[in-house]
Amino acid sequence: MQIDQQALRALISDEDRLLFRPIPPEYQTDALGRLRGEAGALAFPLSAQEVSGILAYAHAHRIPVTPRGAGTNLVGSTVPLQGGIILDLSRMNRILELDRDTMTVTVEPGILLQDLQAYVESEGLFYPPDPGEKASSIGGNISTNAGGMRAVKYGVTRDYVRGLEAVLPDGTILNVGGKQVKDASGLSLKHLLIGSEGTLAVITRCVLRLLPKPEASVSVLVPYADLNTGIRSVLTILQADANPTAVEFMERKVVALGEAFSGVRYPCPEAGSYILLTFDGRENEVEANLERVRTLALENGALDYTVLRDPEQAADIWRVRGALVKAVEAVSEQEPVDIVVPISRTAEFIRFVNELEASSGVRMVSFGHAGDGNVHLCVVRGDRDEETWERELHAVMDQAYAEAYRLGGVASGEHGIGVSKRRYFLRESRAENLAVMNQIKNALDPLHILNDQKSYIPETRRDESR
Amino acid sequence: MQIDQQALRALISDEDRLLFRPIPPEYQTDALGRLRGEAGALAFPLSAQEVSGILAYAHAHRIPVTPRGAGTNLVGSTVPLQGGIILDLSRMNRILELDRDTMTVTVEPGILLQDLQAYVESEGLFYPPDPGEKASSIGGNISTNAGGMRAVKYGVTRDYVRGLEAVLPDGTILNVGGKQVKDASGLSLKHLLIGSEGTLAVITRCVLRLLPKPEASVSVLVPYADLNTGIRSVLTILQADANPTAVEFMERKVVALGEAFSGVRYPCPEAGSYILLTFDGRENEVEANLERVRTLALENGALDYTVLRDPEQAADIWRVRGALVKAVEAVSEQEPVDIVVPISRTAEFIRFVNELEASSGVRMVSFGHAGDGNVHLCVVRGDRDEETWERELHAVMDQAYAEAYRLGGVASGEHGIGVSKRRYFLRESRAENLAVMNQIKNALDPLHILNDQKSYIPETRRDESR
Repeated sequence: MQIDQQALRALISDEDRLLFRPIPPEYQTDALGRLRGEAGALAFPLSAQEVSGILAYAHAHRIPVTPRGAGTNLVGSTVPLQGGIILDLSRMNRILELDRDTMTVTVEPGILLQDLQAYVESEGLFYPPDPGEKASSIGGNISTNAGGMRAVKYGVTRDYVRGLEAVLPDGTILNVGGKQVKDASGLSLKHLLIGSEGTLAVITRCVLRLLPKPEASVSVLVPYADLNTGIRSVLTILQADANPTAVEFMERKVVALGEAFSGVRYPCPEAGSYILLTFDGRENEVEANLERVRTLALENGALDYTVLRDPEQAADIWRVRGALVKAVEAVSEQEPVDIVVPISRTAEFIRFVNELEASSGVRMVSFGHAGDGNVHLCVVRGDRDEETWERELHAVMDQAYAEAYRLGGVASGEHGIGVSKRRYFLRESRAENLAVMNQIKNALDPLHILNDQKSYIPETRRDESR
Repeated sequence: MQIDQQALRALISDEDRLLFRPIPPEYQTDALGRLRGEAGALAFPLSAQEVSGILAYAHAHRIPVTPRGAGTNLVGSTVPLQGGIILDLSRMNRILELDRDTMTVTVEPGILLQDLQAYVESEGLFYPPDPGEKASSIGGNISTNAGGMRAVKYGVTRDYVRGLEAVLPDGTILNVGGKQVKDASGLSLKHLLIGSEGTLAVITRCVLRLLPKPEASVSVLVPYADLNTGIRSVLTILQADANPTAVEFMERKVVALGEAFSGVRYPCPEAGSYILLTFDGRENEVEANLERVRTLALENGALDYTVLRDPEQAADIWRVRGALVKAVEAVSEQEPVDIVVPISRTAEFIRFVNELEASSGVRMVSFGHAGDGNVHLCVVRGDRDEETWERELHAVMDQAYAEAYRLGGVASGEHGIGVSKRRYFLRESRAENLAVMNQIKNALDPLHILNDQKSYIPETRRDESR
């Protein structure tokens, strides 16, 4: 399990693309920086062939490999907990082809979401997935099946992946999917790899589906007396064929933090919660849907209905929404949670969280994607010392995850499981599902080289893993 | 490998739900009836528990099991080639729950597509997947990831499966997915099972996503001088943000057969091809899109633009499209092909087919889904004797599939691979993809009990399969 530096150097000769100890600390962790590993090598490959070479070497010598994109993940997926090699894909960030006929763009996995979005929009096209973190890599987005704001209308990352090139743990280069739209030809390896958090293969090329850029996009801010009324109102909106693009909810208390952080003021400060909607499409469709939802919202308890016609105001309102996590973090360390429940149970789940907050004394603020039941909780550390924080956090999270599963939900809607949610995920998931996932892991990565002991993979010694 | 009739009877005591030899011949084949098996038992389970019991028994005794829905498949997937037990899910056809809040319907797998569609539409809701065969079962639709007419706007069956209950070969009952919308929690077993053609598990319950029923739906028939012009014109329509629901193409020669078969006449009989489009949504959106596409089509070679305002005329025109396969079959036996290529290569692929027809003397008529590059070819047997037909069919198909893959396509867009396309699929697919698929098969069904030697699974003796 020792890394032979010469053997790796033979694969990547550029000094600045292959580093040995000491590895810069920012590569040994994720965006939160709380979990840390100790890798022996950090490689920046530029091609699938280089990725393949490194994996084949690691496979032959049973050296753990941790793939990494932009390192923005929140669950420890990029932490090299077992040491070994960090495979950093961030320099494979080229746009390889824009194909207008098939409405696809082919990119390397290291390209940042914000760069991809800017590029395709400058070409009059549109890549709908829109997770909060725009400096994330597309490879990372695919590995966690990232969701985001526009999922209500457009779906999640999975829905925009047409084809993938990916390298298996033994170095074999796979090509799955392609530019074609339909596929009923054997098992869908593409869909198996999407969301697999780097446990099965390393993505090296992505063919992504694009849409025509919508003509217009208008947001509305709708205040309600309380969160429950707001969330119930969302259900009627979703059933009304008004086709909203985004349906976000925010408790007033988290908005207040966002206001303080950003200097922006939300209208109707007496509200207990806000629903923030976007409609996009043809101009007259957008207008018709705005009117339709105005009636529905006001009939269902909305205190007001502010159409954000002024682009600056709209940008301000969204900036607060986008900065909520940072606003919380300006006050205290927080643990991000992105539980998803059936949309009909969202209000129930948030009520449970509010009661849990009251009974435990652990502060939790919630906001998120009301249109798809994806609740972002920030669990606030405050001034707890390490040991108290660990204990109290686990105690409340044990209850929150148990309740989410009881309501028919799952542990993560878009962040992935990684390391930090594995405890809850392994406990709450059906044993038979975990068994099948691990059978697949064992079949595709029998030596457990790749991102081992993360997500669904239990903590076994690698030698015992079969 | 002998079936113990008493042991099975202990699992299903109803006489009419468990038959032994002789098995009625219609259960030993698929919709085409050319491939036949010889099963020893035919079971009609009524619950996941019964399915589990039968599979556990089969697993313990290494007895092959062939799952079956409505038996409408065209590729031999339901043919019990290795004998054993036929597991017919057609009596598990209940609607279990309509949940308006989550916009889902939960059904058993044996429900027919036409019955599901009628039910949800009577409730003001909409299940978009719309393959040509409406008497197919939902379980079968999921097992082949069925596509159909509306895939251009709405996607395929995969996009409407929220959750599945399925039984593994050893009898373990899995529950994957659920009513929640997003999921980034471990490997997506749901997506692995969708399209797996009954080789990994037997689906016993399906949670399906519904949409609000569109307010209006209008079709247009657009004749072109030749197919190439029609198909090229489709590309401009797809890039124009006009959001068509369906974009079908038909060569004049196949329309002529359809006319003769149905007694309906298409306008503009001097056309070489037709594009048939549907737009749905709000009435004013539909009208706006109709006008947008009228301009585009006429600028790009359309001979006419007939909006089918009269519901009877629209139904007639669609009836001809729906009856094309039967129209061909009224003349001769035919081999159905549903190759899919990137939409930009559709015209090129059809040109190749036309040249192949000319050079080989084997008649092929084509129609299909122009909006997604999914080409239906009917390869016409004529009066060839069995041996000649086999030889000539394989000769032209070898070339057609090779060309499809050369163009970046795959063997099947919606029918699945089954038995009849396996030869081409195994030859044209990348060896490394097939290897991974078979590693997954071996992991989940190590004894190769379930629908063995179909799709991606090579013809090995089951004992040697590991």
